[in-house]
Amino acid sequence: MRITALSGGVGGARFLRALRTHLDRTPALAGSELTIIGNTGDDITLFGLRVCPDLDTLLYTLGGGVHEGQGWGREEESHRVQAELAAYGAVPQWFALGDLDLGTHIVRSQWLGQGHSLTEVTARLAERWGLPEQRVTLLPMSDSPVETHVVLEDAEGRRAVHFQEWWVRLQAAVPAQRFQAVGMDRATPAPGVLDAIRTADVVLLPPSNPVVSIGIILGVPGVRDALRGSAAPVVGVSPLIGGIPVRGHADACLAAIGVESTAAGVAGLYEDFLDGWLVSEQDAASVRLPRARVEGRPLLMTDRDAAARLAGAALELALELRPGGVELRSAGRD
Amino acid sequence: MRITALSGGVGGARFLRALRTHLDRTPALAGSELTIIGNTGDDITLFGLRVCPDLDTLLYTLGGGVHEGQGWGREEESHRVQAELAAYGAVPQWFALGDLDLGTHIVRSQWLGQGHSLTEVTARLAERWGLPEQRVTLLPMSDSPVETHVVLEDAEGRRAVHFQEWWVRLQAAVPAQRFQAVGMDRATPAPGVLDAIRTADVVLLPPSNPVVSIGIILGVPGVRDALRGSAAPVVGVSPLIGGIPVRGHADACLAAIGVESTAAGVAGLYEDFLDGWLVSEQDAASVRLPRARVEGRPLLMTDRDAAARLAGAALELALELRPGGVELRSAGRD
Repeated sequence: MRITALSGGVGGARFLRALRTHLDRTPALAGSELTIIGNTGDDITLFGLRVCPDLDTLLYTLGGGVHEGQGWGREEESHRVQAELAAYGAVPQWFALGDLDLGTHIVRSQWLGQGHSLTEVTARLAERWGLPEQRVTLLPMSDSPVETHVVLEDAEGRRAVHFQEWWVRLQAAVPAQRFQAVGMDRATPAPGVLDAIRTADVVLLPPSNPVVSIGIILGVPGVRDALRGSAAPVVGVSPLIGGIPVRGHADACLAAIGVESTAAGVAGLYEDFLDGWLVSEQDAASVRLPRARVEGRPLLMTDRDAAARLAGAALELALELRPGGVELRSAGRD
Repeated sequence: MRITALSGGVGGARFLRALRTHLDRTPALAGSELTIIGNTGDDITLFGLRVCPDLDTLLYTLGGGVHEGQGWGREEESHRVQAELAAYGAVPQWFALGDLDLGTHIVRSQWLGQGHSLTEVTARLAERWGLPEQRVTLLPMSDSPVETHVVLEDAEGRRAVHFQEWWVRLQAAVPAQRFQAVGMDRATPAPGVLDAIRTADVVLLPPSNPVVSIGIILGVPGVRDALRGSAAPVVGVSPLIGGIPVRGHADACLAAIGVESTAAGVAGLYEDFLDGWLVSEQDAASVRLPRARVEGRPLLMTDRDAAARLAGAALELALELRPGGVELRSAGRD
């Protein structure tokens, strides 16, 4: 089976690692191929090095190198290089760059500088993390640079800052007035992105941020149309429980685009292509969608088994919504 | 007093640190200003980062951060980032890049990428290492990229390799057929370089490699003419004792350009501007130069006091060769 997922960072990465675990535990599904289309709108150039936070989190999480406690970055990390950058007075200093993590940024920047595309570079990085052996392909949403900027106003005045500055330095505490996806009008989907959606048996939307992660991927010209046109069922997992984001500042992002911070509000952003929507059990009774099936499940990925159950539930719903899916699911339970 | 020196890496850096110590210990000379013109022919771009080995060694040595045992790189260094680069299969791996050292390369590359000249970047790096407070100015020989390549022939065929590949990877064990200073024909001296030579009271040549360090600096258009035309005495320190390099592979370099590996042979490379030449005591009797005064001194910088004595002897000889120099020297001894 071919599964395609759109993903941001931490929440998406944990969900997709759990999905891979679920597939491997299910004999009929163990050979399934998973293609992840990762958000690159968070990407930022720091100290001349290209940092792709969501792709890195996906690589580290699926590759077994992530710092489990924080959900991003590397385990057993140190920060000796960054202390040097600070000693030289180099800026900015509000973005944590660990030594091990810097290895990734340096290699990526080197290879990009040699003329390789981000797709090619990401594939080479993924080899080190063993993704091909897991039958996982990680694609950036686009090889064109797209940067999410946030228009805000505070004591320093009205201005647009890089998404990371708002998210990391300002902790999303200053209200976002709107988001700008700089470069999006010139962006094209990375090679393989549209095909991965069009030829998928199932498309999953992990509980990633609906505005600045999945929303940005959906903005890449052609992606939304491919989802609308795909024969595969599209099943998503709500990133909110009772109006509260499971992680991160999804509520602040939704407020900026005038969408209610509820599971129903988020589903509305996907209504033109969404077939199934997993919400928390407490939200199940209140969410009604005109053309998508809603199911209630425990959404908290409190440990890796809970995460695998959630991923399994999303896949199960997709298979139910898919012609012939029941047989495949049954086979998986043998 | 204004002292200007041309310098390569380890030997030059130790000599110049010792010179600064000697100046500070001598009341009449403590206010002296030292301008160092550093070789940049060894510079190399690794992993997309600009590495300036000689400038870095000068910064770290004068700034008190050098690894004393090896003479280059940082003390208390680690190599976590490089292990990551290796894990990704990034090349080359034969050049040691410590974590602390990488901080310098990242900052330099960032600032160069912003459009700053190497002169400007070097000045900013030098601030962190306290060079201005020591009245030391470190200038790259040129802001234009110049790379020393080595023509050689081995089992892999006849080819030109970057100087660092010959020096570090091949340990200068494959005979160099000749050196090429790529970009030298288009290079211009960095701002301040010619003035530092023309307006100096004394010019010193530390015991740096006469071919690939000082020789490269001398090749920058205008530098040699400035030395010939300077009223300041030019005093050098032989990098060889009895035909053996004190450090490094100066003999292999001299062989490649057909010059005898002796103190006299090296002096011959400087004969058009050299006024004084310090050689080892064992070489003193055998070296005769037509227009430079030769003196024998212990050349081994076995510890920092020995190095300070050597630097003091070079300066003393220069002062003797300078009109009015004797008074200044006597004042220094009060």
